[in-house]
This record gives sequence, structure tokens and C-alpha cells, in this order.
Amino acid sequence: MKSFTYHQPTEIIFGSGKVNEVGEVVKKYGTRCLVVTTPAVEATLPMYNKVKQLLEDAGISVAHYDQVIPNPTTEVSAEGAKMAIEHRADVILGLGGGSSMDAAKAIAVEASHEGSAWDYLFYKKPPTEKTLPIVSISSTSGTGSQVTQVSVITNTEERDKSALYHPLIFPDACIVDPELMTTLPRFVTATTGFDVFCHAFESAIHPNRGAYVDLLAWEAIEYVAEFLPKVLDEPKNVAYREKMAWADTLAGLCIASAGVTLPHGMGMAIGGMYPHVAHGESLAIVYPACTRFTADSAPEQYGRMAQLFDSDLKGLSLEEASKHAESAVIKFLKKIGLYKKLSDVNMPEAEIEALAEQCMVLPDYESNPKVATKAEMIELVKASY
Amino acid sequence: MKSFTYHQPTEIIFGSGKVNEVGEVVKKYGTRCLVVTTPAVEATLPMYNKVKQLLEDAGISVAHYDQVIPNPTTEVSAEGAKMAIEHRADVILGLGGGSSMDAAKAIAVEASHEGSAWDYLFYKKPPTEKTLPIVSISSTSGTGSQVTQVSVITNTEERDKSALYHPLIFPDACIVDPELMTTLPRFVTATTGFDVFCHAFESAIHPNRGAYVDLLAWEAIEYVAEFLPKVLDEPKNVAYREKMAWADTLAGLCIASAGVTLPHGMGMAIGGMYPHVAHGESLAIVYPACTRFTADSAPEQYGRMAQLFDSDLKGLSLEEASKHAESAVIKFLKKIGLYKKLSDVNMPEAEIEALAEQCMVLPDYESNPKVATKAEMIELVKASY
Ligand SMILES: [Fe+2]
Ligand SMILES: [Fe+2]
Repeated sequence: MKSFTYHQPTEIIFGSGKVNEVGEVVKKYGTRCLVVTTPAVEATLPMYNKVKQLLEDAGISVAHYDQVIPNPTTEVSAEGAKMAIEHRADVILGLGGGSSMDAAKAIAVEASHEGSAWDYLFYKKPPTEKTLPIVSISSTSGTGSQVTQVSVITNTEERDKSALYHPLIFPDACIVDPELMTTLPRFVTATTGFDVFCHAFESAIHPNRGAYVDLLAWEAIEYVAEFLPKVLDEPKNVAYREKMAWADTLAGLCIASAGVTLPHGMGMAIGGMYPHVAHGESLAIVYPACTRFTADSAPEQYGRMAQLFDSDLKGLSLEEASKHAESAVIKFLKKIGLYKKLSDVNMPEAEIEALAEQCMVLPDYESNPKVATKAEMIELVKASY
Repeated sequence: MKSFTYHQPTEIIFGSGKVNEVGEVVKKYGTRCLVVTTPAVEATLPMYNKVKQLLEDAGISVAHYDQVIPNPTTEVSAEGAKMAIEHRADVILGLGGGSSMDAAKAIAVEASHEGSAWDYLFYKKPPTEKTLPIVSISSTSGTGSQVTQVSVITNTEERDKSALYHPLIFPDACIVDPELMTTLPRFVTATTGFDVFCHAFESAIHPNRGAYVDLLAWEAIEYVAEFLPKVLDEPKNVAYREKMAWADTLAGLCIASAGVTLPHGMGMAIGGMYPHVAHGESLAIVYPACTRFTADSAPEQYGRMAQLFDSDLKGLSLEEASKHAESAVIKFLKKIGLYKKLSDVNMPEAEIEALAEQCMVLPDYESNPKVATKAEMIELVKASY
């Protein structure tokens, strides 16, 4: 067996209705809480109010920073940290999707350290034990951020996107309550659900994986293959939302321990250049081409994945099935309404080479079982166009 | 899906040869280390010396408490704590089987708190943040103690056996190096290996289990069913030792999150009254009777287990297979050389009722899918006699 290291200290509180325990959970870490969310809209306002009420009922003093934006920026972190300091917050609660949970992590660092969160990026200074405790409540089944030590942030001034990555920003506790997810719109369910698959599958082909990640990843992949189409048909079905919420959490555990590869490298670049493209949508766009490119280099995993996405392939050997992996992925993408190309999201054809260059900025593509050259990356972008 | 809470903060460092990283690992937590082991014998002396040398090479000042006994006592904890204080140890390293790792946990508490470890039992005072950091290195594939928050200790004076149970005694890090296990004697391999199965299976029928424990438990059970017989045939086969070491770790994660049930309740009582009976041996003795008693109350799990132990049952439904669970367990016990009765280990027949009473002292039996009455407990002991 491959050697590996696994470390995941977050207390996971999973189950329908578990949001009601938020007061008790947060109280373990502090009595003055900054709640971090996106601006309230009709669909999220009741959830925000409920959580704040529950915290206050538990005797916790609450301030609410509600200006998180998708792809949170250094401004978001700075504003949130300022509010945390003013409130003398001793615990930060991220409530929402990946953006809110990531912002909460950056704020927990910036509110307790000199300088800005940007000074504590993974390749700069590590944050210290002064980092405020973090609790997260995920309201989508997508980013897995509730169980990761990563916070992706964008520096508007430097036009750069990077990440804090440190064990101290693992949430101390997370609440995963599938009932919060029954009102998610179809597109969000599909794109975040496909992101779950990508986290698990890219971890399952990642060089850092070990027996633990393999176990978690394939459970998540099986759940997505079965339950993402089902939950799209019946969005209010709590049992299906539970399966996707658990798959998301498992996939988050996988990226916390292994990581993502080529498709995420490309998807992040697409998201950077074309912010109107949703994260999971960008992944859906590149997956067929990435699959064709990589399948031969990890036939066991691609074969197993192909059989899960296309039951007609179940009689074949994994090696044989892997040769049909691209068409199996396309079949699944059609089923969840995400089979599309870069041209469908209005990317200018003239920018293909520029995008290919961006795809090689983050190191993720180097973790792929087959590492793309510049020329191959251009072909991958073209094939996705 | 069932709601659940999962929390396991130990850094797991898994793989053949990983013991060589012990200096680096321990150094994260301190520079003055107390190594806790049983007295050296020919088979363990080289391992003890190697670990101490590696620690010293990393600049760590080492003291060695080497008087741990099976079923470690309050004296062991007191002596070890005294040595830790004298050495001004800032980290405790438990090296060996469950006894050494459990003793290390008790010493980490006693050396940093007023009074004795016995004052910090799960139903008494909780230990505080002052608890010294704990690192564990498992040299058997048995107790899972390298990843649990439990330390079983015996109070010789009060003739009582109980446990510390607190998140602060999770080891901060553990090293699981299967190469350390290739010299284990056959009986130790068989009994500790069967204990792994019991931890996983009892967790899989435990009311506290959730989706996470289910995933880990069944992986462990499948590994034991396949690789325990194989490793007994080829004890030096590192690949088989790896599978058992990983199964042990998974099963430890299961008991840290769910727990054990009736068989362990009975096994602990047997170990208390007849200390010459090994822990895994006591479990082997009671498993057939416990299986017959419980199978109808958890037919899915018993059916799945029966099919893993006896491949002839694979065509049946789980419900049907569960009716053959007892014979499947016996078939497996014969295969690993552990099919025996209480009379085989020289228990006096006159003590059957006394033993049955002892089996109901620890609360574990109450977590069984079917809870035994006093009369039923006597029958269970008789059937195991
Ligand atoms: Fe993602
Ligand atoms: Fe045990």
C-alpha cells in the first residue's frame, strides 16, 4: 500500500435539522460571534435570521457581515476583519456556500494578525495560533469548504487569485444540514453537485492519495453518479439532498488530504478570465477533453468512473471501460444538463491561447496522471471550445 | 440518513518505514519526550532502541518508562507520570500495543494534573488543556488505540477497571508502520486481528453509528475477512500486514466515533476475571453465542458479515444469510485457530453466574441491537462455556 498522511480535525455535525444546534456548537469556541454571509435575498433571509436568533438564544453576541461576493476578495476579508475587531468577535461563523465559508476563514486570520489575509497565502507567512476559531455551516452541496484548510481569495488590486492553505484554518466544527439545501435552484444544484464529483475523482487520481482518500472518494463518486440526477428530478427530496450533502463532505475531506488536478486547474483559469461562468460549469466544460487526455494514464480509475456513469459498461474490464470514459462523462453531463462548450458561454475564440497559458499558472495541472505540455493545453482548450 | 457527529483530530502517518519519521513528528509537539513501553524483550529491544536513537538524532531529550504491563494499572500511570515530571517531558510517546498506548494517555494526564489519572475517568473530572501532547506508534494490529480518545486502566487497590475518555487524549499524531508488525507471534496476530473485526462490526451495529462509521467499518471488516487468514499463513508478508494495520486503524476510528456492544462487554468481563485470557481470545469465545442472540435484530449487518466470512452464502439475501451468521463466524474462527470455549481456558463452571453479572457492569451490552436480560446473559455465558 502507498504511504500517506491524513489529518482532519474538524468536528462534523451531520444531519437534517442539525442547524438547530448552532448555538451549542458555537458556544464551545466563543461568546462573541461574527456571522459571515452573502447579502440576504428572499431565499436566504429566513436562514440567516434563524441562525442569528439561535445564536442569540444561546447567549452569544452576534454581529453580521453580509457583504461576501462570489470569489471573495481581499476587500471582503478586510471589511469583515474590521467588523470582527469592532465587535471583539472571538469566533467566526461562515454560513452559506464556498464563498462565505472561505471568506470566514480569511477573516479569522486577518482579524487576529497584522496586515491583510493576502500576507498569509500558502507561500507567504503561515498564520499563527492566534487565528480565531472558525465554524462553518454549508448551505450548498458543492465546495466541501466546511471541511478544508483552504480559503480561495482574489486580490482585486493585483488582479490575482490565490489561496490561504493551513491546518489552522480547518473549521473547528461544521454543521451540514441537508434541509438547508432543498430550496437550491436547479443550476446551483447541478454545478455544485458536479463539483463534488470533480473533487472526489481528481483526488482519486492525485499522487497524494492513499487508502483513506480512495475509500472516501469512491463513496462520494458513487453517490453523485446515483443521486445527483435524482435530486435534480426531485429537488425537495431530503433523502437525496442528504446523499449529496454527505458526498460533498466526503469530497471535501478528499481535497483536504489529496487535492485537485488538471480539470480544476483549467476550471479555475476559466473562472478567473470569465467570472460569469460558474465554477462547476467550467469543470463540466473541460471534463470530456480532460478525460480523453488522461484516461489511458489511469485506466483503473477512469474505467471505474465510466462504469458508474454508464451502466452499459459494467460488463467490461476496467481497462476496456476506461476507453469509453469520455462518452460516459458526456452521457452524465447531458443527464444533469451541463454538457456545454466554451463557445456556449461566450468566450472569444481569439483568447484560446491566453486561456491555455492561464491554465498552467496554478500548479494543479502538474498533479494530473498525465501532465500537459503547452501545446497539449492549447489542444485541451480547443477541444473544450 | 441518520444524523451523526464525527470528530477525529489525530494526524495519521501510515506506511511501511514511516517509523523513521518519528523524530520529525515528535518535534512538532516538544523537545523532551517520555517514551512509554512494556519491558524490552528480545523481539522489542531493537525497535525501542531504534525509536530512541531516532528521537535523539532529531535533538529530542529522551527518558524511557519501560514498565507498562498488560492491562496497565494506576501504579503504571503514577510511576510513568513521576518520570515524566522528573524529565520535564513536554510530550509523551506510547510505543507498542494497546497497553503502552493507553498508558501513555493516562501518563499525559497524570503528569500535568493534580491527583492521579484515576481522578479523570470519564464519569469524574474531565482533563484540561494542560494535558501533555501524545504521540503513538502501534506495533500490533489490534486495539486501534493509536486513534482513540480512550485509555483503559485498572485500579489495583479498588480492584476496578475503568477508562479515561476525552477528546484531549486523542493522540496528536500516530505512526502506523506495518513493518513493525512482521515479527508478531501467530497468537498475537490472530487475537489482535480478530479484535479489529470486533471493533468494526460492533461499531457497524452500534446505535451511535452514522454514514461515516458505516463506510470505515465495512472496509475494515472486508479487510479482516480476506487478509487475517492470509497474514497468518504468511506472517512476513508486508502487503498483508499493511492491510491489517489499515483495517486496525479504520476500526479504531470506528470505536472512537461509535463504540462496542455486547461481545466487548462480555469480553472485558472475562478479561477482568481471568486475566490469562487474551482480549481477542475472550471475544472469539463469545462471538458465536452473541451472533446467534443478535442476528435477527440486525439482519442486514449480520447477513453482510456472514457473506464475507463464508462465500457460499453470497447468493442469498442478506436476511437469509443472517440466519447462517453463527456458523459463518465459527467457520472463520476455525480458519484463524480461535474457535474455543470458556472451558478451554479453564474457567470454573461454578463461576458462570458470577461472570454473567460482571458482563452487565460496563454499559456496552446495552448498546447491542438486542439487549440481554440477566437470564439471557447467563444463557450467553453458558453457550460460550
Ligand atoms: Fe471545485
Ligand atoms: Fe477490543
